[in-house]
Amino acid sequence: MRFDHVGVATRDAADLADLFDGLFDAPIAHEEAFDGMSIVFLELDDGGYFELLEPAEDGTIADYLEREGPGIHHVGLATDDLSAALDRARTLGVDLIDEEPRPGAWGHEVAFLHPQSTGGVLVEFVEH
Amino acid sequence: MRFDHVGVATRDAADLADLFDGLFDAPIAHEEAFDGMSIVFLELDDGGYFELLEPAEDGTIADYLEREGPGIHHVGLATDDLSAALDRARTLGVDLIDEEPRPGAWGHEVAFLHPQSTGGVLVEFVEH
Repeated sequence: MRFDHVGVATRDAADLADLFDGLFDAPIAHEEAFDGMSIVFLELDDGGYFELLEPAEDGTIADYLEREGPGIHHVGLATDDLSAALDRARTLGVDLIDEEPRPGAWGHEVAFLHPQSTGGVLVEFVEH
Repeated sequence: MRFDHVGVATRDAADLADLFDGLFDAPIAHEEAFDGMSIVFLELDDGGYFELLEPAEDGTIADYLEREGPGIHHVGLATDDLSAALDRARTLGVDLIDEEPRPGAWGHEVAFLHPQSTGGVLVEFVEH
């Protein structure tokens, strides 16, 4: 398994994309309106991404920004076998937000683990 | 620039290391007592790391856990030229926590950027 992305909640994805491109040499690789959010993926040299999440309407990310303010929201780990990764999480007693893979941004299959089971870290498994 | 690590604040690094190894195939690569913390690095397949930060005494991470609870604390970006990365950050108007590179864990040179300048994301530049 490997780092796929760091997800960041923001009120202005375009502005943060400009700054992160300047700081990290991470140009925009993909932009998408998805699930009530404007999402911008910035690509680092090694193929890792920042996923900038800006709410376009009420929802999870809007609630998060209200409660926590902007910042790191989750970490995405890439796997070649998402179903096996979820089975392994279940075996380890980890609570799943998504019991089965579901369609995520950029056409990927994704599933989130519950942060109360993973040391407060919101983990997203991603299969490209 | 590339993802080096995701830093996680925890009250029990050994326990979280066991869980993350099981979930992510990320065995312990390095352990160190550093700057009032017990630090455990877990290595992913691609050479990225989770850096688990457990406070051994009062300090930044103990305060963070008190205030925010356990979870993702910062993201580490690896660079081959830390001084140049800091110069670039200054040019972009980003406030620096560390104006100059300083010794970090595992013998690396590190410098942190102020999260108020970077969308709430605590960024650590790392030069191995």
